[in-house]
Amino acid sequence: MARFINRLSKTAGQIPGELIHVGEQKAGKVAISVIDYDEKNFQEKQSSAVEETFCFKETATVTWINVNGLHDLEIIEKIGKNFGMHPLTLEDIVNTGQRPKYEDFQTYIFVVIKMLMFDDLLKEVVSEQVSFILGSNFVISFQEKEGDVFNPVRERIRKAKGRIRELGADYLAYSLLDAVVDNYFFILEKIGDKIEVMEEDLIVNPQPQTLQAIHNLKRDVIFLRKSVWPLREVAASLERGESKLIKKATRIFFRDVYDHTIQVVETIETYRDMVSGMLDIYLSSLSNRMNEIMKVLTIFAAIFIPLTFMAGIYGMNFDFMPELHWKGGYFYLLGLMAVVGFGLFFYFKRKKWI
Amino acid sequence: MARFINRLSKTAGQIPGELIHVGEQKAGKVAISVIDYDEKNFQEKQSSAVEETFCFKETATVTWINVNGLHDLEIIEKIGKNFGMHPLTLEDIVNTGQRPKYEDFQTYIFVVIKMLMFDDLLKEVVSEQVSFILGSNFVISFQEKEGDVFNPVRERIRKAKGRIRELGADYLAYSLLDAVVDNYFFILEKIGDKIEVMEEDLIVNPQPQTLQAIHNLKRDVIFLRKSVWPLREVAASLERGESKLIKKATRIFFRDVYDHTIQVVETIETYRDMVSGMLDIYLSSLSNRMNEIMKVLTIFAAIFIPLTFMAGIYGMNFDFMPELHWKGGYFYLLGLMAVVGFGLFFYFKRKKWI
Amino acid sequence: MARFINRLSKTAGQIPGELIHVGEQKAGKVAISVIDYDEKNFQEKQSSAVEETFCFKETATVTWINVNGLHDLEIIEKIGKNFGMHPLTLEDIVNTGQRPKYEDFQTYIFVVIKMLMFDDLLKEVVSEQVSFILGSNFVISFQEKEGDVFNPVRERIRKAKGRIRELGADYLAYSLLDAVVDNYFFILEKIGDKIEVMEEDLIVNPQPQTLQAIHNLKRDVIFLRKSVWPLREVAASLERGESKLIKKATRIFFRDVYDHTIQVVETIETYRDMVSGMLDIYLSSLSNRMNEIMKVLTIFAAIFIPLTFMAGIYGMNFDFMPELHWKGGYFYLLGLMAVVGFGLFFYFKRKKWI
Amino acid sequence: MARFINRLSKTAGQIPGELIHVGEQKAGKVAISVIDYDEKNFQEKQSSAVEETFCFKETATVTWINVNGLHDLEIIEKIGKNFGMHPLTLEDIVNTGQRPKYEDFQTYIFVVIKMLMFDDLLKEVVSEQVSFILGSNFVISFQEKEGDVFNPVRERIRKAKGRIRELGADYLAYSLLDAVVDNYFFILEKIGDKIEVMEEDLIVNPQPQTLQAIHNLKRDVIFLRKSVWPLREVAASLERGESKLIKKATRIFFRDVYDHTIQVVETIETYRDMVSGMLDIYLSSLSNRMNEIMKVLTIFAAIFIPLTFMAGIYGMNFDFMPELHWKGGYFYLLGLMAVVGFGLFFYFKRKKWI
Amino acid sequence: MARFINRLSKTAGQIPGELIHVGEQKAGKVAISVIDYDEKNFQEKQSSAVEETFCFKETATVTWINVNGLHDLEIIEKIGKNFGMHPLTLEDIVNTGQRPKYEDFQTYIFVVIKMLMFDDLLKEVVSEQVSFILGSNFVISFQEKEGDVFNPVRERIRKAKGRIRELGADYLAYSLLDAVVDNYFFILEKIGDKIEVMEEDLIVNPQPQTLQAIHNLKRDVIFLRKSVWPLREVAASLERGESKLIKKATRIFFRDVYDHTIQVVETIETYRDMVSGMLDIYLSSLSNRMNEIMKVLTIFAAIFIPLTFMAGIYGMNFDFMPELHWKGGYFYLLGLMAVVGFGLFFYFKRKKWI
Repeated sequence: MARFINRLSKTAGQIPGELIHVGEQKAGKVAISVIDYDEKNFQEKQSSAVEETFCFKETATVTWINVNGLHDLEIIEKIGKNFGMHPLTLEDIVNTGQRPKYEDFQTYIFVVIKMLMFDDLLKEVVSEQVSFILGSNFVISFQEKEGDVFNPVRERIRKAKGRIRELGADYLAYSLLDAVVDNYFFILEKIGDKIEVMEEDLIVNPQPQTLQAIHNLKRDVIFLRKSVWPLREVAASLERGESKLIKKATRIFFRDVYDHTIQVVETIETYRDMVSGMLDIYLSSLSNRMNEIMKVLTIFAAIFIPLTFMAGIYGMNFDFMPELHWKGGYFYLLGLMAVVGFGLFFYFKRKKWI
Repeated sequence: MARFINRLSKTAGQIPGELIHVGEQKAGKVAISVIDYDEKNFQEKQSSAVEETFCFKETATVTWINVNGLHDLEIIEKIGKNFGMHPLTLEDIVNTGQRPKYEDFQTYIFVVIKMLMFDDLLKEVVSEQVSFILGSNFVISFQEKEGDVFNPVRERIRKAKGRIRELGADYLAYSLLDAVVDNYFFILEKIGDKIEVMEEDLIVNPQPQTLQAIHNLKRDVIFLRKSVWPLREVAASLERGESKLIKKATRIFFRDVYDHTIQVVETIETYRDMVSGMLDIYLSSLSNRMNEIMKVLTIFAAIFIPLTFMAGIYGMNFDFMPELHWKGGYFYLLGLMAVVGFGLFFYFKRKKWI
Repeated sequence: MARFINRLSKTAGQIPGELIHVGEQKAGKVAISVIDYDEKNFQEKQSSAVEETFCFKETATVTWINVNGLHDLEIIEKIGKNFGMHPLTLEDIVNTGQRPKYEDFQTYIFVVIKMLMFDDLLKEVVSEQVSFILGSNFVISFQEKEGDVFNPVRERIRKAKGRIRELGADYLAYSLLDAVVDNYFFILEKIGDKIEVMEEDLIVNPQPQTLQAIHNLKRDVIFLRKSVWPLREVAASLERGESKLIKKATRIFFRDVYDHTIQVVETIETYRDMVSGMLDIYLSSLSNRMNEIMKVLTIFAAIFIPLTFMAGIYGMNFDFMPELHWKGGYFYLLGLMAVVGFGLFFYFKRKKWI
Repeated sequence: MARFINRLSKTAGQIPGELIHVGEQKAGKVAISVIDYDEKNFQEKQSSAVEETFCFKETATVTWINVNGLHDLEIIEKIGKNFGMHPLTLEDIVNTGQRPKYEDFQTYIFVVIKMLMFDDLLKEVVSEQVSFILGSNFVISFQEKEGDVFNPVRERIRKAKGRIRELGADYLAYSLLDAVVDNYFFILEKIGDKIEVMEEDLIVNPQPQTLQAIHNLKRDVIFLRKSVWPLREVAASLERGESKLIKKATRIFFRDVYDHTIQVVETIETYRDMVSGMLDIYLSSLSNRMNEIMKVLTIFAAIFIPLTFMAGIYGMNFDFMPELHWKGGYFYLLGLMAVVGFGLFFYFKRKKWI
Repeated sequence: MARFINRLSKTAGQIPGELIHVGEQKAGKVAISVIDYDEKNFQEKQSSAVEETFCFKETATVTWINVNGLHDLEIIEKIGKNFGMHPLTLEDIVNTGQRPKYEDFQTYIFVVIKMLMFDDLLKEVVSEQVSFILGSNFVISFQEKEGDVFNPVRERIRKAKGRIRELGADYLAYSLLDAVVDNYFFILEKIGDKIEVMEEDLIVNPQPQTLQAIHNLKRDVIFLRKSVWPLREVAASLERGESKLIKKATRIFFRDVYDHTIQVVETIETYRDMVSGMLDIYLSSLSNRMNEIMKVLTIFAAIFIPLTFMAGIYGMNFDFMPELHWKGGYFYLLGLMAVVGFGLFFYFKRKKWI
């Protein structure tokens, strides 16, 4: 549940533009890294002081400033001031309960998305908010904590693989966004595997606890859907490229991201269909098994009930009951009981009740 | 139920523009408060007579007139007349069964929204209609009764926190709207907590009375949805800012409100999904438990039925039943019964029926 | 069922524009009433001959001609001819199986809506088709039979209450439409009350016959929805006011009608949700109760089955059964039975099965 | 099932524009009838040779050529060539698996619709594809076989009823389309009657075989929906009248067809709702009845089980059982059994279990 | 499951435009075939080296280059370079997890679709990705492996059947697309047949394993839907013909493809409806049968229970039980038992419980 609502109310009543960090409070230092490059040069450093990054604002090179940790509001504010960000943008960066969104502030584009990871301990999908500021020659990314999916991008910049060093800040923004969306496929696979395993179990061996598992799966899918669904609009906005900050040649790459997003969304919808189907299958399957058991037991009882009645008859104490005095009457009765018992058994068998 | 329909029919047959107060009739005085400010000056007072507020219409300062209580129709009419409001606007203000709406009357903007509160006594969400009139330099707000969510806004004006004192009436309107929408997050959390608690109960310990609780929860969510859903259009209209009364710089703030509204709506939709899922889970869970009980009892019976039959056999009074005269025949039979009983027990066990 | 389909096929195969009255054939005279007014003058009369109304076509005053009864096709045709109505309009007026619609014929606007009434005898909602012709200075309304919701409007015209006498034919049309829509709220309340009563019954005391009642309620709601849903478009068309026949100042009143219509539609949707929820609740509730009964009875049996078995043991006739000859063996056994019986009872109790 | 898919694959792999007749192959002659008229003249004939119809292409009179039977591809091709039809149009005419569609080929309008009939033998709705070619002064209609719903139109032309003889080919096309759509109402009524009958049965007397009947009904409704749904677009396209072939005055008649189509579609949707509701009702109703039976039987057993136990007690053979030797002990016990039996009976009664 | 997700994550983290073949890796040579034609000439050959195809780029004739096998990335890259394809296009060609899409790159149109085949061994629908590059005078098609549905098209080109030799590359692209879409109808028929067979089984003879079969069918339909749904947009984009590469005369043929696609999609939706209906029918049917069995057995027990009780009565050992000493008491009792037994039987019969 916490995943769905915990950050909602903390900012209520706040002054618009006032920064209140929403999320797990973290002590420790905020880690700021800077990668600065053009076609020929490349420079990478960890900044201890936020002010060191300011000089990159005006350079002709492409600069990627990555901020890990949102709890030091002073740093965020300084960056915001230097790079000309609107107070509402800063508010959205630190309030990690945002839904994915795209906002065009003329001088920069502000994009919020969710980076999803599969927590192997909790066995559930967790999400982290990542915000991007795309300026004319810089990208600033804000993450809640260390650990991200951007290492392949860093590697490509460092080693000048592909065309990333030749292209501008908009292509860098695309690369980062692409890395996040590509990562969704891993998550989808994890969940797909879970669904596959569970589906087989469902029919072969339905367990009462499966109910809980299906329910958890359903919530994972709802959570995923909520995180990814608004991304469609974000990707579409970027693809349309109404901002001058996105060059025409880059738009085709954003279209690629858009295509991937659609694919993710469609797969999630398919999962939703499957998971709701699973509950039906589970219930039918369980009810089938239960019915089988009850039927067998009832038939069992139905065979013995008339036999017990027959034994009851000859347990009566009437003075005059001729059969009791027949020689072999007892054995005749046992024989009759066998006939009745097997007769009923085969009757039920033939009716396909057993 | 009352929450959904009670105010519908009271105004039927009325003359359009005729004021009929719909809602809980309240005696007592209507409380009117005025806050008047510009960047440098600030003035706050409780008006006993409505006429005292009229002077603020023409001043250059920003004025916020708040009216608590809608039952004194004369006051509403006087305000309407002085501030140039359309008769239909006045009708909508006092008829508290409105759905949230935005209407642009050129000289003023009329906004109706629902302020939601969680009634700790009734344990349910209650709503109060709040109407705003946004003029060029004033905001008039109408509430059904005392008690609102605007104190942080008042505090900000008094202490000149943030930029509220520097900006105009449109920013004041935004601040009030924002306060109402932010408050929804509290309500969502309350309901989210309820859902969380109930979900755990559902699987661990399903109770017949849970049905009623799920049903109530579902109605809370339907009620919430009905109150908030039309707000999307209201916020979108304000964001588009087609009226000259909303300055361009303020539109970005209304976009923020719009984003929050979307977030509220999406969370409500997620809750809806969850609550309908809960009924399924509840039923399956209950039926699982019931089935378990019935199965155990049926197996219990199935073991004793053949044993009773065996006892019945040797209770018969045939003259010639050799086993009866065997020495130890009784004990042989008891042994046989034990074998049959345990045999069945282990058979059922192996079949995983127990 | 009749409410949904009975009028569908009667006009099939007819010549377009040919008048065929569809509905309950009524003998008797068609009642025509005329109300003619301007700001100062007022005149009201019952016309015995339709020709008497023709003179009002050219006068400067606003005229409202109301026709009760559609079975006298000659009268309808005469009116149509005199007031310049298209043959298809006349066809639609007498064919009472229309869905609500708005048609702009340049010289007049044609509106069909459904007037709903709650039939206290049948205990169901019945509908009557009302058609309006709005010309430049007249409104002609056609009803299926006597009895309508327009008396408050008549009263207002007679007593010059509100502004109705000052405004034109478009305002009169609005007033009539408004009266019909306002009446929907009464119907909604009736149904809302029914739902409320039934919901309480559902959980407290589910009855097999409740099924029928829910089903009827569902059909009432479907019927309502079908009657009101297309009205949204009608009201929206009027509000947009593309026709010159609707003055700009009147459009705001039609917007009010539109708002009410949306409110009605939303309430119907809420009812739909509730009623479908009720079936689920009903079924769960019934099944809960049934399960409770079955469980108690099964436990009842489960306690007596081993006891009967024990009695069976000592009813056997073996020659050598030592317990039979013990002094007090009978009482020991009774004691043992009590122990087993209560033991099982408390065991089941502790497992929360009882 | 055949109704849904049988014609799908036969044309796969064909050359576009190549004519392959899909449908029940029919030997025998294709029947071609021609009706040619203007305001004053009227001529009707059965053509044995298709070439006889060609002369009507250039005349000023309105001509309706009706072709019954699509299996003689040579005839279709000749007509197509003479009247300037596109190869794809011819392909669509003979491939009777089309969905209703409207295509504007500048020189002619091509409309495909489904003519529905209720087959009294199969007790199900069958459909026949009808294609119309509307040229400037002719309409060519193609039907799969003899028997149609156009006789009222023929009658009107022959007898010059209504305005059909005065108006052009577009009005003729409207008349034919209108005849087909009007016929849907008959089908709707047939199905509506079935639903009504079944609904009563459902609650009063649910039968296992009802399941099959509901299922068939559901498929009839799905079939109907599939045939009629695309007709909305067809009618809307005709109403918008973008083609010069449709005169402005005729558009209002197509609007009438559009209205009827909407009405048909809405009624189908209502039926869908009702039929899916019926399955729920049926299942609840059946389960209610079953539960009643099981409950009564279980109670029956629950009363006799303790009584049998009591009889078992006094069937035991202990040496010392004082009650056995009491004078009247037998009658006391019978009395006790009666008390216990009736006691349980009234207990269950009071608990409302019986 | 594999069908839904297996190719998702392999390309994550890749450099945009870098080629990574996703799909079943295949050794062996890639087969390249070339068909080159104009109205008079025709030439067909298998190319061993990809370079042989390059000469066709500039010729005036229409050229169709078909590549079977995507695992040799070098070949793909060479083709891409020679024919001026964008890196993202090449990436999409080899990544076979694409959803159907249409992209207009000015100098060429890129279309990805799914070719569906029914695998007779796996008894399920399998899909293969086919990409088309439509240039001004060439079409390049890429397939995952040998075996396709294009033989009728090849035949038509070879034998100059229809107009294919007279028309350009856009008509060739249409022919190929049409062949793929036409093939869907075969798949639909296969599934339709399965549904038909299963529906009959469902009601006549519901089996527990049917559940699995319905579930598989449902997944086939979901899979189909996912493959075909986006094709609507593809066909619509081609029909609108915004690219200069598609001549106006060819657009009408793409409209035909669009119509077929809609028909496929609608049939899939109908199947979906039917398959979900089947689960309901199956469950009801199974539960009906189960209930019948349980009812009969319970009635069986209900008849014997009182009889056994009566036998128990006269098995008691009271000293004074007058009936025991009656002459014929035993036979009277047997008679009474018969009366009670048959009485109950007929009572249940009359109540229609049996």
